[in-house]
Amino acid sequence: MSRNIMEYETVELDEQEGGILIIDQTKLPGKTEIIRLRTAQEIWDAIYLLKVRGAPAIGVTAAFGIYVLAREIAETGKLSGDEKDAGKFADWEVFYEKFTEQKNYLDSARPTAVNLSWALNRMDGVCRSAHEEGKTVEEILEILHEEACRIKEEDIQVCRAIGEYGLSLVKPGDGILTHCNAGQLATCKYGTATAPIYLGQERGYGFRVFADETRPLLQGARLTAYELHSAGVDVTLICDNMSAMVMKNGWVNAVFVGCDRVAANGDAANKIGTSVVAAVAKRYGVPFYVCAPTSTIDLATPTGAEIKIEQRPSEEVTEMWYKERMAPEGVKVFNPAFDVTDNELITAIVTENGIARAPFGESLREMCGRGR
Amino acid sequence: MSRNIMEYETVELDEQEGGILIIDQTKLPGKTEIIRLRTAQEIWDAIYLLKVRGAPAIGVTAAFGIYVLAREIAETGKLSGDEKDAGKFADWEVFYEKFTEQKNYLDSARPTAVNLSWALNRMDGVCRSAHEEGKTVEEILEILHEEACRIKEEDIQVCRAIGEYGLSLVKPGDGILTHCNAGQLATCKYGTATAPIYLGQERGYGFRVFADETRPLLQGARLTAYELHSAGVDVTLICDNMSAMVMKNGWVNAVFVGCDRVAANGDAANKIGTSVVAAVAKRYGVPFYVCAPTSTIDLATPTGAEIKIEQRPSEEVTEMWYKERMAPEGVKVFNPAFDVTDNELITAIVTENGIARAPFGESLREMCGRGR
Repeated sequence: MSRNIMEYETVELDEQEGGILIIDQTKLPGKTEIIRLRTAQEIWDAIYLLKVRGAPAIGVTAAFGIYVLAREIAETGKLSGDEKDAGKFADWEVFYEKFTEQKNYLDSARPTAVNLSWALNRMDGVCRSAHEEGKTVEEILEILHEEACRIKEEDIQVCRAIGEYGLSLVKPGDGILTHCNAGQLATCKYGTATAPIYLGQERGYGFRVFADETRPLLQGARLTAYELHSAGVDVTLICDNMSAMVMKNGWVNAVFVGCDRVAANGDAANKIGTSVVAAVAKRYGVPFYVCAPTSTIDLATPTGAEIKIEQRPSEEVTEMWYKERMAPEGVKVFNPAFDVTDNELITAIVTENGIARAPFGESLREMCGRGR
Repeated sequence: MSRNIMEYETVELDEQEGGILIIDQTKLPGKTEIIRLRTAQEIWDAIYLLKVRGAPAIGVTAAFGIYVLAREIAETGKLSGDEKDAGKFADWEVFYEKFTEQKNYLDSARPTAVNLSWALNRMDGVCRSAHEEGKTVEEILEILHEEACRIKEEDIQVCRAIGEYGLSLVKPGDGILTHCNAGQLATCKYGTATAPIYLGQERGYGFRVFADETRPLLQGARLTAYELHSAGVDVTLICDNMSAMVMKNGWVNAVFVGCDRVAANGDAANKIGTSVVAAVAKRYGVPFYVCAPTSTIDLATPTGAEIKIEQRPSEEVTEMWYKERMAPEGVKVFNPAFDVTDNELITAIVTENGIARAPFGESLREMCGRGR
């Protein structure tokens, strides 16, 4: 009896046994394996190795992660291993020094998605505020728990709101193309780019979806095609280099993609290849929509040129997933994990607070302001 | 002692042992395996399964192939297996009926590259002319042999000429991007899109080449990166979806691609993804050059819309090359082997007779006329 992938939680705090439970996404679609993350190393690895991925899901994992680590740090007995310390809590200074250390460590796992540092900074903020209000370390742990759960709950609400706004941009029977996985597996529910698709599915819109496979790690083939197919959506898998053909054939009415960081001018960093889809969509007159929770909008970064792009190992291109090495030994490889789509290729940026259009400098500030 | 891949012939007639020798390109880069093709089924399979591929190399294989089969058909003793028939030759009618049958069979292996039928029709033409001139079947075999060897020799000269014209479009130190493999492995020497690169290499131009890996069958990773790397060219492998990033970074001064069929208006069918590169090049102001022997220009096909695009099995996308299935069971797949690049995205079409520019209707007719 195999459960449908849509019934699993992407990221979950295990209140009983401790630690965080995630679906190991590197094993999909062949195997649905739930793994438990307890240590800083395990959490860092899970993010770096893309066992959990997608900007919103990374944010939630980091929030739960720093909470789990905070509890470890705070409970003196756990650290000393001495029974007489059981149930005692560390002093604020000791606690906060280690908390900061672990927070910085988790923050170093991946550079491009702003949600990682956004979530960690939010957890840090409530931690410091609580201390300033005179709370004890024990009370602070409870506050961190609440905040992490709130980040997860908000993610679900935000995705649903993005879905509603996105749905207003398309009509029943439309063809929709998406790149990489900005789906339920990248968030806690609905996804960002897939949220309009899932809401449309609930309402009988009958979309025809094209999923780019998304080399090198094939998140489109392994994750998006998988989750949409499991949910009963009409999805067709294509290689990344087929987008021009399906658009030229008139099969695509809109492109929806997620993003990892939106600069203040609307330039959007997302999975490598997104800007190729945007250039092709421009050529064939297909509207190109970026779905972005406001937590992904980084008003402190003026343009895409200032976004740090993660470079990943060449083996992802030359041998990973393959029976045999697919490229000659010693060949040079350029393997950026993300690219930046120029704001002029973006028709609109869909947030949980509304739809931002050019000039983005103004509209994005407005979207970010609305939620506060 | 492993020989450099550049020392092997892509397609070779074995005058001693009989049959055609080819490098099985599906085994590259892991293994350099030379295989012998003798029967119609073996030749058809080698073309269909891409053991030999690239429009010019397919043409040469078809020419040698129909010659090898003609010899088989003509030598009555080989068919009957009867010793008393040894050395005897079939009548023209019996011979030509079977020749036509085998020619049509080979022609059915792949639909998009015009060189397959171009080479077969050329062999058919000399065969019929020779008969009309009163030649015997034995003499006709010799004429077919000469014609097939001439097609191969011309391929080498044509590629070299394309290389010279192509080289005039770039300068030392330039960055060049190419898609799929229109290299030496797609022809008998130099390649088409790679001919300017190899000639530049001989002259110390120091090009920096970017090779698209070219999903689903990875001819760019397995063949282009392999042959250029073996030849000592500075080549960097990228996934197909990274073209926009390298162009935006200013690393690419020109794109050179091959083609399988050019319509009379300049629309060019080539490996799937070529039109994506063209749209991206247009966006970033990078000149986009199609390298096309005039044998690839099909003046009888008015526009790209009339070019038949081969659809290939979905397994090429979902499982081939992989340790494990990479997409869910049952998911729909769209897997066209080629796409058509709109003539307005093409800066120039480089032929062995010169460089054609818009309006292509006129310039292509002129290029085709020059060689006759």
